[in-house]
Amino acid sequence: MLLTALIERKRDGAALEPSELGELLQAYLAGELADYQMSAFLMAVYFQGLSALELSTLTRAIVDSGTRLRFDDDGPPLVDKHSTGGVGDKVSLVLAPLLAAIGLRVPMMSGRGLGHTGGTLDKLEAIPGFDVRIGLDRFRDILARIGCAMIGQSAEIAPLDGRLYALRDVTGTVPSIPLIASSIVSKKVAEGISALVLDVKFGSGAFMRDPEDARRLARTMVELAAAEGLSSSALLTAMEWPLGRTVGNALEVRESLECLRGEGPSDVREVTLELGAELLVSAGEAPSREAALQRLEAALDGGGALERFRRLIELQGGNADVVDDPELLPRAPVRRVLEAGADGYVRRMDARAIGRAAVELGAGRRRVEDDVDPSVGFVLHAKPGDEVPAGAPLVTIHASSGDRAQAAEERLRAAIGVGEGPPDGTSLILERIRPADA
Amino acid sequence: MLLTALIERKRDGAALEPSELGELLQAYLAGELADYQMSAFLMAVYFQGLSALELSTLTRAIVDSGTRLRFDDDGPPLVDKHSTGGVGDKVSLVLAPLLAAIGLRVPMMSGRGLGHTGGTLDKLEAIPGFDVRIGLDRFRDILARIGCAMIGQSAEIAPLDGRLYALRDVTGTVPSIPLIASSIVSKKVAEGISALVLDVKFGSGAFMRDPEDARRLARTMVELAAAEGLSSSALLTAMEWPLGRTVGNALEVRESLECLRGEGPSDVREVTLELGAELLVSAGEAPSREAALQRLEAALDGGGALERFRRLIELQGGNADVVDDPELLPRAPVRRVLEAGADGYVRRMDARAIGRAAVELGAGRRRVEDDVDPSVGFVLHAKPGDEVPAGAPLVTIHASSGDRAQAAEERLRAAIGVGEGPPDGTSLILERIRPADA
Repeated sequence: MLLTALIERKRDGAALEPSELGELLQAYLAGELADYQMSAFLMAVYFQGLSALELSTLTRAIVDSGTRLRFDDDGPPLVDKHSTGGVGDKVSLVLAPLLAAIGLRVPMMSGRGLGHTGGTLDKLEAIPGFDVRIGLDRFRDILARIGCAMIGQSAEIAPLDGRLYALRDVTGTVPSIPLIASSIVSKKVAEGISALVLDVKFGSGAFMRDPEDARRLARTMVELAAAEGLSSSALLTAMEWPLGRTVGNALEVRESLECLRGEGPSDVREVTLELGAELLVSAGEAPSREAALQRLEAALDGGGALERFRRLIELQGGNADVVDDPELLPRAPVRRVLEAGADGYVRRMDARAIGRAAVELGAGRRRVEDDVDPSVGFVLHAKPGDEVPAGAPLVTIHASSGDRAQAAEERLRAAIGVGEGPPDGTSLILERIRPADA
Repeated sequence: MLLTALIERKRDGAALEPSELGELLQAYLAGELADYQMSAFLMAVYFQGLSALELSTLTRAIVDSGTRLRFDDDGPPLVDKHSTGGVGDKVSLVLAPLLAAIGLRVPMMSGRGLGHTGGTLDKLEAIPGFDVRIGLDRFRDILARIGCAMIGQSAEIAPLDGRLYALRDVTGTVPSIPLIASSIVSKKVAEGISALVLDVKFGSGAFMRDPEDARRLARTMVELAAAEGLSSSALLTAMEWPLGRTVGNALEVRESLECLRGEGPSDVREVTLELGAELLVSAGEAPSREAALQRLEAALDGGGALERFRRLIELQGGNADVVDDPELLPRAPVRRVLEAGADGYVRRMDARAIGRAAVELGAGRRRVEDDVDPSVGFVLHAKPGDEVPAGAPLVTIHASSGDRAQAAEERLRAAIGVGEGPPDGTSLILERIRPADA
């Protein structure tokens, strides 16, 4: 009865005391509050939000539901990056070894593709042999040796988040800013890091389409992280069209390798460097953004980051020969080129629709239990703003069969617009959100 | 996934198509939609409401989840009354035999006490031997013989309502006007009646404290009933203090017998007659409220209603001697009188606090599994507006022990206010709501 009264108070817009919210969450963990009560509570939170104190209480309860990692305190700063998810977003594959190359430690825990978005784990697994399920001991060991290690969410970390997310996923309570913020920040706090940079995306291919929602989420997370003793900052980045020129797991690894050589598309490079600079500044490792960028560029262009990635692949069981010979990555048997129908400018490449087309092609999962085909995806030969003549290749589709390639082509045709004149310019990085602003 | 999308659409304020809402409810009945999904949906309904079409779809699904009673079509009109619940509300015990006495059929299904409010079934069971759990066959038979029968909700009627209510009760989703309306109206539609009168209470002792909420509920129910082919009207009645002069099961049966003799408190008589008149008019059995009142008064004052109640008790297995000798009803061993502390007017008798004091005394249940003590309760010697001298008896407490009597006295002292000057007058019946107004 008392627990039901707490649901009612949240429903009516009250902020629960830490002891009350704590009791509710402990009762859930103990099986005394049923899933049907928690889902009603979560829906009430969707409508009524959480106060800063409630958010902090929830976040701490999630952290305390599992192990909190501790690393050697005398080593370099422990840092991580989190993206709210997009299409063609391979930044983690470049940024983790890059930060390690300049002397930071990056104990990165990532996720799989969700909906139309890709996931770092799926991309890493496109490298033959790469194991993202190594235990926490090997994770610590690799981190100590090369300054970065990349694994999936450990079941020992924040198990309450896993239970809540599974419930939210089937009860229409995913898109709640406080619930998203507590889920992300709690896992990063439990990782034992001291600085975090957040890539909060907005636009067609992001979970938050509206920049204002993305801004609220970013502010909520930065403020929450600060309350939990984790220095952080966030970039609001555009996700109207895919990042870079590839979508699909092996294709994105290939593009990541180009970036790690100091080549590759400028947008991937820009987001990677800016996120890295935010981290260096907030971790107190660089006096200014400019100084940080200089260090990061040197490590990227000098090959230090690439060598760190090679070591990472080796230590996590992968075939590191892919670094020098990307042809060793899985390759799809069928290729089909989508061409521009008329002269014009690429005006639109709808990231969500392209992400969905990639999922349909097998690059992502329609259901959780589906397998991912690492080889399939898209190479974008033009991006919004580019002028293209009729017949110019727009996209090469990498598919497992002719039928699937054709289906993808039809989806892409609807997702891509070529017309007169260039589209309005949009900036890739809209805003920086730091604790002082939060 | 599709079902989750329906929860999301309701969350976002959309009205679901009948086929969509129907699918959701069928999936719930079939065990394909989990309780945790339904409770999230119900919380979304709490915030976003239901359209008239959704309400109708939900109501019909509840009706169709069980048996829909059919009675002999050639007999007199089948009618019923429903109250949203109050303190000291014994109207059903008077109204059912009264309507039967003037030739209508009243197949009444009632509930038990809920929270601080009393329940018709608990009152009837205060009559030694009275069986409210007779099966539907005996129910039909008694109805055919004397024009009324009074039982509890049959498990064969609207089982979906039972499941939804049990879920709402523990998930903070009870006080939703569309959910309340569909729960009430569906059960009355399934009863197979053709006219319904609703007593929608507002004030301290009612579930809706605010008359505006009560008005919205009444309009929603009258409109919904009309959509389901059930003619109905509603009275908004005040529940700031208890109805009549008794609270507690046997004490209320005693007062009901007084009313059935044409005696008893004027407020109980007024509400009974006005509800009856509404029914007669809406069932087309009287040309006007005045004509209806005349018929009802004649049956009440002429003893016809009392004789019908005697027969009802006999046929449902009770000791009908209580009609002539109310001393045969259960009597509490301890009586204690609360007196006015000073000269003044009774200004306040908080119905909710008095209802709670009665529950604590044993007249109601703190938990569903509690037994009710039929003998205990309160007799109110004065009501708000009455002038009382210091030392005048205000309430006689009927209790099972001295300790419980004393605890009740303390609660009553806080619930009753005697002060200078009479309180502002309030009308017992605030408003009539008929389909044309709805």
